[in-house]
Amino acid sequence: MQKVKRIKGGVCSAKGFRAAGVGAAIKYEGRNDVALIVADSPCPAAAVFTTNKVAAAPVVYDRAAIKGGRVQAILANSGCANACTGEQGLKDAGLSALIVAGELGIDPKHVLVASTGVIGRRLPVDRLTAGAKRAAKALGRTAAHGLAVAKAVMTTDTVSKEACATVVIGGKKVTVGGCAKGSGMIEPNMATMLGFITTDAAISPAMLRRALLLAINKSFNRLVVDGDESTNDSVFLLASGRAGNDEITRGGEGFDLFREALESVCVSLARQMAKDGEGATKFVTVTVKGAKSDADAARAARAVAKSPLAKTSWFGRDPNWGRVLAAVGYSGAEVSDMKAEVFYDGEWAFRRGEVADEAQLNRLAKVMQKDEFEVTVDLHLGKASSSIYTCDFSLDYVHINADYTT
Amino acid sequence: MQKVKRIKGGVCSAKGFRAAGVGAAIKYEGRNDVALIVADSPCPAAAVFTTNKVAAAPVVYDRAAIKGGRVQAILANSGCANACTGEQGLKDAGLSALIVAGELGIDPKHVLVASTGVIGRRLPVDRLTAGAKRAAKALGRTAAHGLAVAKAVMTTDTVSKEACATVVIGGKKVTVGGCAKGSGMIEPNMATMLGFITTDAAISPAMLRRALLLAINKSFNRLVVDGDESTNDSVFLLASGRAGNDEITRGGEGFDLFREALESVCVSLARQMAKDGEGATKFVTVTVKGAKSDADAARAARAVAKSPLAKTSWFGRDPNWGRVLAAVGYSGAEVSDMKAEVFYDGEWAFRRGEVADEAQLNRLAKVMQKDEFEVTVDLHLGKASSSIYTCDFSLDYVHINADYTT
Repeated sequence: MQKVKRIKGGVCSAKGFRAAGVGAAIKYEGRNDVALIVADSPCPAAAVFTTNKVAAAPVVYDRAAIKGGRVQAILANSGCANACTGEQGLKDAGLSALIVAGELGIDPKHVLVASTGVIGRRLPVDRLTAGAKRAAKALGRTAAHGLAVAKAVMTTDTVSKEACATVVIGGKKVTVGGCAKGSGMIEPNMATMLGFITTDAAISPAMLRRALLLAINKSFNRLVVDGDESTNDSVFLLASGRAGNDEITRGGEGFDLFREALESVCVSLARQMAKDGEGATKFVTVTVKGAKSDADAARAARAVAKSPLAKTSWFGRDPNWGRVLAAVGYSGAEVSDMKAEVFYDGEWAFRRGEVADEAQLNRLAKVMQKDEFEVTVDLHLGKASSSIYTCDFSLDYVHINADYTT
Repeated sequence: MQKVKRIKGGVCSAKGFRAAGVGAAIKYEGRNDVALIVADSPCPAAAVFTTNKVAAAPVVYDRAAIKGGRVQAILANSGCANACTGEQGLKDAGLSALIVAGELGIDPKHVLVASTGVIGRRLPVDRLTAGAKRAAKALGRTAAHGLAVAKAVMTTDTVSKEACATVVIGGKKVTVGGCAKGSGMIEPNMATMLGFITTDAAISPAMLRRALLLAINKSFNRLVVDGDESTNDSVFLLASGRAGNDEITRGGEGFDLFREALESVCVSLARQMAKDGEGATKFVTVTVKGAKSDADAARAARAVAKSPLAKTSWFGRDPNWGRVLAAVGYSGAEVSDMKAEVFYDGEWAFRRGEVADEAQLNRLAKVMQKDEFEVTVDLHLGKASSSIYTCDFSLDYVHINADYTT
């Protein structure tokens, strides 16, 4: 029996949250670029931030702010990353948090901020403030309000990304829902994106953090678009406690159920991000199995997912297993080309020195036409395995990133 | 006074070598794809090979063969890499060496082989043998013979690459000349390309090896095209001793002069390879200085040179220093965006929190139009520095690699 139920929804699906997305002309005209998520009262909160040593001002601000363990509001904007903006950037981040707090009549220390967009430009505080004020007035609890947040944080994303799941814990229905934005600078170890997740589970801050770290390791940390790692990326998780379940304060069945629901939301968002990778035409899962160690499996899968030569071959619909194996070879993982096998959606392309013949190449050609497939490398050296979600490298990737300007 | 003189030339410039390039229809019709370089007698030789754990059959073969320290001939082919071809690939490599030895009447243990091209296809030994026989008959000592080798080893290269230098050692003119092929799967730590270098210096095998390792660290190991590392790449250096200098058997002035000449040839070839990187429209030198350690400087420069986002910004003529600094940030190197500066050909784009104004952006726009420029990051944290040669990431890179088929 599947305990976790996936439903439609986003940051307004769980009880206890309001949200809004409005346009403030931060960079783009005629679209939403400011989002506000507000809990009815200060909540246990957890967040994970970029590991990039050049961290944006909002990340520096939030790292300090979240130490209190409770959050009531998150203000987010697209169009400007507020990164590499020095002391001024930090002041701007703090000022926008203060303004939100004033507008909502809440404690400023319960407000977080998130930014995404161009690096090195000062945050247009006036416009952001005007946007935040209008967002505060527009707050609501409907699915449309949640979707407005998903849309306001988009940059080069082509579609908005939401996911939601429910699970029954101790007889009470618990909901976990959220949204995320990609789509360039995507690389494992988080450091990758903005994600906003809310839940009505009653759970202690410590267990909330533990659940988030576990879920991220199975989802966003398994995602590669181009191997670049951003200065801004952050995943936030707020828990209102309104589901009425007994508070989860330690490991056990309740925690496991919550963790599964959260993981299913995070995995869905991560997959949506890979599919919407900049210029992507294909969603590819790279799995390395039979590795000598977990570290080897992860290293090898990541090297394949990041290889420009492998990624362009997928775009070209070419089952070029040689580039896949070459990437495994330089990843640092143990590999013997006398033992290794490479499959595309279960069709073998190379096995222990044997190369696909004409009939097999025809089968492979069919796989390569698909919008989604799995590349599997079986190293036959051990029992460890690892999977990475990624996409191909297309002409549009270059178009998008040659034109997206400083 | 410049002691090393750069002249035109290639593998036939040094005394004691003959060469030929012929067409054998290994993959392409109507072009040369088999090359042969032959010394008048067995020579001290050194070689450096890919660090990829999936090493091609010719690399495995040569690693064993060169242990004797002397080489008389190298057979090279393009169109087929003879990689991931199992035991059969090793037999094919050995067989082609045997055939060359028979044709030339020399000891088979003095013959090396090199292949480049598609991975996972068996070497077409019949055609290669026919080519080798014709090449043996076509051997000559002219510049045209050297150029024929440079042309026969090309794959997606758009131009042939040769370099030559002379230096006077103990009153005798010593010549070092060679050729190389790029141009995808180029990444530091060798593992990158085929290079063939000959010299008439009299030098012991041990000192020859030492000179080659030093030169490679200043040239081919500073080269990034796409960050992929090939299974086949090799640099060969043969020394005929015909210049008549006293044999170089230890460090000192003679060794230093030889090393400088060799380094100038290797640097020239490496720069030519970066310029001819697949689809490249710009040659870019990435320099990181003011780093806390040599390792930090190298890590940071490499991360920038490999970053798809930085590379596409160069193609788009965008001084997007934010992507440069973000790459430094995830490289693992120590960095503070409050201290760092980013320059394009000496024009600052970002300095310690300050961003280029309109006038400065105009100056930067001029730099970005150039075919060659240097991106410099000054971390202001220490004294270490490192440079990497690389190129931009263009629409043509994707075209070439989506179409180049297994």
